[in-house]
Amino acid sequence: MKAWEKNIRRVVPYVPGDQPAGDRLIKLNTNENPYPPAPGVRRALGEMDYDRLRKYPDPAASVLTECLAGYYGVDKNQVFVGVGSDDVLAMAFLTFFNSEKPILFPDISYSFYKVWAELFRIPYEMTALDEAFLICPEDYYRENGGVIFPNPNAPTGLLLGLEQVEDILKHNQDVIVIVDEAYIDFGGRSALALLNRYENLLVVQTFSKARSMAGMRIGFAIGASGLIKAMNDVKYSYNSYTMNMPSLVLGEEAVRDETYFRETVGKIVNTREQAKKRLRLLGFSFPDSMSNFIFAKHEKVPAVRIFQALKDQQIYVRHFAGPRVEDYLRITIGTDEEMEVLYDFLEGYLRGEISGKCF
Amino acid sequence: MKAWEKNIRRVVPYVPGDQPAGDRLIKLNTNENPYPPAPGVRRALGEMDYDRLRKYPDPAASVLTECLAGYYGVDKNQVFVGVGSDDVLAMAFLTFFNSEKPILFPDISYSFYKVWAELFRIPYEMTALDEAFLICPEDYYRENGGVIFPNPNAPTGLLLGLEQVEDILKHNQDVIVIVDEAYIDFGGRSALALLNRYENLLVVQTFSKARSMAGMRIGFAIGASGLIKAMNDVKYSYNSYTMNMPSLVLGEEAVRDETYFRETVGKIVNTREQAKKRLRLLGFSFPDSMSNFIFAKHEKVPAVRIFQALKDQQIYVRHFAGPRVEDYLRITIGTDEEMEVLYDFLEGYLRGEISGKCF
Repeated sequence: MKAWEKNIRRVVPYVPGDQPAGDRLIKLNTNENPYPPAPGVRRALGEMDYDRLRKYPDPAASVLTECLAGYYGVDKNQVFVGVGSDDVLAMAFLTFFNSEKPILFPDISYSFYKVWAELFRIPYEMTALDEAFLICPEDYYRENGGVIFPNPNAPTGLLLGLEQVEDILKHNQDVIVIVDEAYIDFGGRSALALLNRYENLLVVQTFSKARSMAGMRIGFAIGASGLIKAMNDVKYSYNSYTMNMPSLVLGEEAVRDETYFRETVGKIVNTREQAKKRLRLLGFSFPDSMSNFIFAKHEKVPAVRIFQALKDQQIYVRHFAGPRVEDYLRITIGTDEEMEVLYDFLEGYLRGEISGKCF
Repeated sequence: MKAWEKNIRRVVPYVPGDQPAGDRLIKLNTNENPYPPAPGVRRALGEMDYDRLRKYPDPAASVLTECLAGYYGVDKNQVFVGVGSDDVLAMAFLTFFNSEKPILFPDISYSFYKVWAELFRIPYEMTALDEAFLICPEDYYRENGGVIFPNPNAPTGLLLGLEQVEDILKHNQDVIVIVDEAYIDFGGRSALALLNRYENLLVVQTFSKARSMAGMRIGFAIGASGLIKAMNDVKYSYNSYTMNMPSLVLGEEAVRDETYFRETVGKIVNTREQAKKRLRLLGFSFPDSMSNFIFAKHEKVPAVRIFQALKDQQIYVRHFAGPRVEDYLRITIGTDEEMEVLYDFLEGYLRGEISGKCF
């Protein structure tokens, strides 16, 4: 071992989901939106002044923070933007979770919470979801260094009502509580409604799901201006210019078109409700998702077998290893056409598996 | 003070340089390139498939790492890309500087080194540049937890010869040595030539200067594959998808056009050499810059006065506070036309100041 090797930070690398490429595949594995971004995004892309690329972008990302502030009815100094919600969340961990006490988050949840805690050496404890995969607010009544949970939760898709979110906030007024709302637009009520009453609340959202912009990497946090200032101070100590020029220009366009946004989200919600019926008929059960994916378990055929059979057909869904979750597949809601291909294949495949084999 | 406030990380926020906007101003304050990106960038922008924005970008940024690997004649697993060289450098600090011993860097240098060290709680010591603003390799002979310096240095513009860079490497084989080459294309020889002999060497470069892409936020590091793997492990623990789709597509185009690159860099170098003559005639002295800026001090008129007078004319240059540097202005090399406006104004202004006032 070289002398310098002992000072290299060793982490267990997180492995992102497959990003298979190809025209004919059906990609239902990373909760992307099946519809393109708002038409204004295309227009802005075509009209973009490429000469401006030679200049640094606005470090305050004002165009985007002001646009989001207007949309959500908050002040612009209550908005922080970053390179996807991962950047925003990581920055929030670094800024707010500096206690000796453990931060708390659900055991079945977004896998990055644990990864960031380990990277930044933040003590943490995971609280178990109940039998029905629900978050129990009482689990967050104990002393801690901070709280974070997704709502709706991933990969379960289950929504916590606003009363329960507030219950967690009420019991945690001495720490920062982060509600990670990547999927909130698909059917939940945002904790933004509680901002006026809890200045220790940080709400994080993303452009990657409902706004069809995973490829642009835009996430944001909204909270009391004091929290946002603290995050900006840390951000300016890390990288002043995180948001590139196209992100700022196209991000603004994505927020502007409310009609298109409602329309595509509405289509996904309809397809999801249809999917619940169709998957149930095929022998799947699942928590009642309020997100753009369904976390489904088949009554007879093991998840890992279905996962592989689908992959052989170039239909990609997500399968996670680990107790409890390994029985499930996380299926992103695609277009109606993509979902029909999925149902059609599953129908034939499951019939064959069930009649021909025993488990 | 609220209970949660005590766990907020307090940092002294870094203040980025002004980004004044307006059509008529002359912006010579942030070392941007006065020429637009390569024509292929414009073409690629126009042809970009906006539907792809709904999908996550390739987390490995393969298109860009492979393109850079080909250009610099290294293996693709020797290349790491990030959101500007700030992201790359911060990630390198987090990955490699985990010793109890202080890291070393020059006292007059890129101001972010100190900021990152403080953010990540890395002990550091600054070594003083000599009277002529030169880095003295002997200052880096002592025990340390890592070394970083820019070459050419900023804001001085002075280049360290490759023999001296190697001398620092020879005396520091137990730690990671980072050579930050943001300005190397304007006249220096890259430490990439030493990669085969020093597996503890990390060379960091950027698309923001010679490649006219500050607005895209692309930086990269090249080193032994083991170092790059360690950085990627940390990156995947922070944010899997840092490079958005436009960065990958446009970044590749910027690297491809070698002719345009040589041509614009050549123009800037010519303008810089011309600027040295003109500024000298106006009573300025400066270290012999090998970068795209000149760090100039006037023989009679204080820098801060000239700075303000230029600003009043909407000509923006950079002035830093602090001992030794406060006597200087950092003037980015613009187009010949922009520089003529600068000389013309300075000629009249300095004549007036010198004849009419005493200091």
